[in-house]
Amino acid sequence: MTAAGPAAGTTAPPPPSGDPFLRMWRELLPIGRHAGSGGYRRYAWTGADADCRAWFRDQATARGLAYETDRNGNQWAWLGDPSAGDAVVTGSHLDSVPDGGAFDGPLGVVAAFAALDELRSRGRTPIRPLAVVNFGDEEGARFGVACVGSRLTAGVLTPEQAAALRDADGVTLTRAMADAGCDPEAIGADPERLARVGAFVELHVEQGRALDLAGAPVGVASAIWPHGRWRFDFHGEANHAGTTRLDDRHDPMLTYANTVLAARKKARLAGALATFGKVAVEPNGVNAIPSLVRGWLDSRAADEETLAAVVTEIERAAAERGTRDGVRVSVTRESFTPVVEFDHALRDRLAARLGTDGRPVPVLPTGAGHDAGILSAAVPTAMLFVRNPTGVSHSPAEHAAEDDCRAGVTALADVLEGLACQ
Amino acid sequence: MTAAGPAAGTTAPPPPSGDPFLRMWRELLPIGRHAGSGGYRRYAWTGADADCRAWFRDQATARGLAYETDRNGNQWAWLGDPSAGDAVVTGSHLDSVPDGGAFDGPLGVVAAFAALDELRSRGRTPIRPLAVVNFGDEEGARFGVACVGSRLTAGVLTPEQAAALRDADGVTLTRAMADAGCDPEAIGADPERLARVGAFVELHVEQGRALDLAGAPVGVASAIWPHGRWRFDFHGEANHAGTTRLDDRHDPMLTYANTVLAARKKARLAGALATFGKVAVEPNGVNAIPSLVRGWLDSRAADEETLAAVVTEIERAAAERGTRDGVRVSVTRESFTPVVEFDHALRDRLAARLGTDGRPVPVLPTGAGHDAGILSAAVPTAMLFVRNPTGVSHSPAEHAAEDDCRAGVTALADVLEGLACQ
Repeated sequence: MTAAGPAAGTTAPPPPSGDPFLRMWRELLPIGRHAGSGGYRRYAWTGADADCRAWFRDQATARGLAYETDRNGNQWAWLGDPSAGDAVVTGSHLDSVPDGGAFDGPLGVVAAFAALDELRSRGRTPIRPLAVVNFGDEEGARFGVACVGSRLTAGVLTPEQAAALRDADGVTLTRAMADAGCDPEAIGADPERLARVGAFVELHVEQGRALDLAGAPVGVASAIWPHGRWRFDFHGEANHAGTTRLDDRHDPMLTYANTVLAARKKARLAGALATFGKVAVEPNGVNAIPSLVRGWLDSRAADEETLAAVVTEIERAAAERGTRDGVRVSVTRESFTPVVEFDHALRDRLAARLGTDGRPVPVLPTGAGHDAGILSAAVPTAMLFVRNPTGVSHSPAEHAAEDDCRAGVTALADVLEGLACQ
Repeated sequence: MTAAGPAAGTTAPPPPSGDPFLRMWRELLPIGRHAGSGGYRRYAWTGADADCRAWFRDQATARGLAYETDRNGNQWAWLGDPSAGDAVVTGSHLDSVPDGGAFDGPLGVVAAFAALDELRSRGRTPIRPLAVVNFGDEEGARFGVACVGSRLTAGVLTPEQAAALRDADGVTLTRAMADAGCDPEAIGADPERLARVGAFVELHVEQGRALDLAGAPVGVASAIWPHGRWRFDFHGEANHAGTTRLDDRHDPMLTYANTVLAARKKARLAGALATFGKVAVEPNGVNAIPSLVRGWLDSRAADEETLAAVVTEIERAAAERGTRDGVRVSVTRESFTPVVEFDHALRDRLAARLGTDGRPVPVLPTGAGHDAGILSAAVPTAMLFVRNPTGVSHSPAEHAAEDDCRAGVTALADVLEGLACQ
C-alpha cells in the first residue's frame, strides 16, 4: 500500500472524503507508532490501544452500527439484531507486537468496515445479523499469552489463568483491564455470545510469501500449525567477569547460547520452526557473569507430534549443556495452541467463490496464530489472506500493496454477501 | 562478616556505640538494596547514590574532617591542609554493579574512616595531610564506562567523551551530574588536585580466591590486567517467528549465540577471560525474529598483546558467522584500560610492613579494574586486598569475614601511619 504505508503516511495529503478505506487507514497510521523504529507499539490496554479502540467505536457509530464491548473487552459493531442468531462476523485485532507493522491486525478491521461499506454501495441488505469485531490483546506482547480476548470468550483461557498474568512492570491483566473500563468480575467464557455467531471470517495480511509465489492477491486459509511458547530459565551464579576463573564459573549465558543454536538445528532437521526472540538477563551488567538468563522459545510445526519432538530435543540439549556449565535449566510451557483445521465446507465455498474461470484461489496453511484459530473450535470459521510481497511481518517493513488490500476488501465483501445476504 | 552481612543486617540489634566500624557498615547496608535479589543497585547519580554520598558527608563532618566535592563529583574528607601537598589519600567507591554485593567499594571507604579512627586511638598525629575519598561512578553500571570519576580527574576521559555518555533511558551523564548538584561546566581534568597527592592507597575486597588459597587475610596488589569492553551489534531483520522460513531469516540471535560460545573458547585457549554478561534485544518479542541483538564483551588478559589477539579472534568468529546468517556485525570498543603495574617501591614497602616474622604478605595481580589503576599513572598508588573466602563478587553472595575486614582496617591504619605519620 504505497500511498498509505507508514513511511508516506506522515506527509501524504488528506485522502479524498469519498474513499473511506484510505481515510480509515490513515486515521490509524499515527496511533502507537514509535518515531525511532517506525514500528507500532500498540500493547493491550495501554494508551495507544485505547486510541485504537476509540477509533473503532467512532467507525461503528459513524455507520449507525450498534456498538458494544463484551465481558472480555472485545469490541463489536452490529448491523442487525445481535440476538437473532446465525450472525456473520468479521474482523481481527488492533494491537501489535513490539515494533510491529501497520497491517497485521488492523488490515482485517479496516477491511471489515470497508466491506460493509461496499455491501451498502452494492445495495445489498443482509438477511442475517452482520458484525465487525476487534479482539483484544491478540499478540500477547504485554502479558505473554496470545489471543487473550478470544481465548477468554471461548473459555480456553480461564479467568483464574488470566488473573495470574502480569506485564513486565508487574501490572496484572485484571488491573490493566479494569483501568481500561472492563468489569473484572465479568471476565470469562461467553458461550451465549458465540452461540449467536453462525460464521466468523478474518481477513489478514499473509505472513509468508505463498501468495506472492502463486501470483494471487488473495487466498484462503486451510489450517494453522500447532504452536507454543516455552520459557527456558538458565540458573547460574553471578560473579565478577574480570576475576572469576573460567573453570570456577556457572555462566548461564553459555548454556543459553548453546540452546539457541541447538533449537535452530533441531527445527531444521524436523522441517519445523524454532526461535528465541526474547531474552531477559539478570543482573545484565557488562562486567558481571549473569545469575539468570531467561529465553523464550517460540516453536511451530505442521503437526503436534513433530512439534512435541522438536521441543523435547531442545530441552534435552539445554539440559545436557547445563550439566556441563554447572547451570540448572527449567522449562515452563507458557502457552500452547493445537493444530487448527478450518471448517472445510466454508473454506471450499470461499475458495470457489473467490476464484476466477472456475479456478479457486490458493488455499494455504500458516504458522501464525489468530483469533480465528481460537474461535474455530466453537464456530465455523474461515480466513482470507492478502498477498505480502516480501513475506515480512512483525516488523516495520511489513507491507501489502494498496491494490491487493482493495482486492481483499472486495473478496471479503463477496464472502459476506454470500454468507449474510442470501 | 557474618554479624554484619546483608542477610543478618536487617534483623541484628543495633551495634554498640563504641564500635564505629560496625556502625558505619550497618548504616550503609540498607541503602540501595533490592528486596527481591538481596543485591545492591547503587547506580551513579541516582537516589541510592545520593544516600550513600550523604552518608559519606556525615562521616566526614562527624570526625571534624574538611568535606568537599571536586569538579567531577568525587567526595573528599580532609584531615590537615589539602594545599600542603604530599597528601596521603585512601578510599574507594560506594556505587555498585546491578545486584552487586555489599563489600565491593564500600569496604574500602568504611575501612578508610575506620583506619583514621584507629590512628586517632593510637594517638598518632599525621605530619602530612590525610584524606578519605569516594570516587563517583566506579562501576560504570549506568553509563557504560567504568571509573568515570577518577578517569575525568586524571584526564583520561575528556569532558567531551563524558558528555556523550547516556544511560538506558537516554539521560546524559552531564544531565545526571547536574541534577545531583555538580557544575557541568567544571567537569574535567584536575591536575592541580592530583599534584597535591603524594600516595593513594585503596583497600578492596579481593575478587578471587588467591588470599584464601594462601591462607592470608590481607594482601597487596602487584598489577591490574589490561581489560576492556566491546559492544557487538548484530543487525538482522525483524520478522514473524511463526511464518518466516528458516532459509529466509536473518536472525541475529544465532550470530550472537555463536559469538558467545566462540568468546569462551578463544579465551580458554589464550588463558584469558571473555564474558558476555549484558544483552539488549530489539524488539524482544517472543514471536518476533529480532532486528538487533546487542551484546557486550568484557575481556581481560595478563598482557595487552594477548588481550588484543583474543578480541580480534572473537570479532573474526562473529563476522564469519554473521556472513552465514545474513547478519551484519559491528564492534565498538567502549572502554579500554591498559595494564597497570602498581608503584614497585610502595608495593614492596607495604608488603614488608604488613608481613609477620619477616615474611611479607602475598602480592597478587587482579583482573578487576579500580580507581587505583586509573590514578597510578599520575600518583604513586597501592592496593590492599581483604580475603574473599569464595571469590564471589559482583553478586549478593559476595562476602568477607568480619575478622578479615578488621584485619584490613588494621593493615590500612599501619600503612597510613607509615606514610603520613613518619
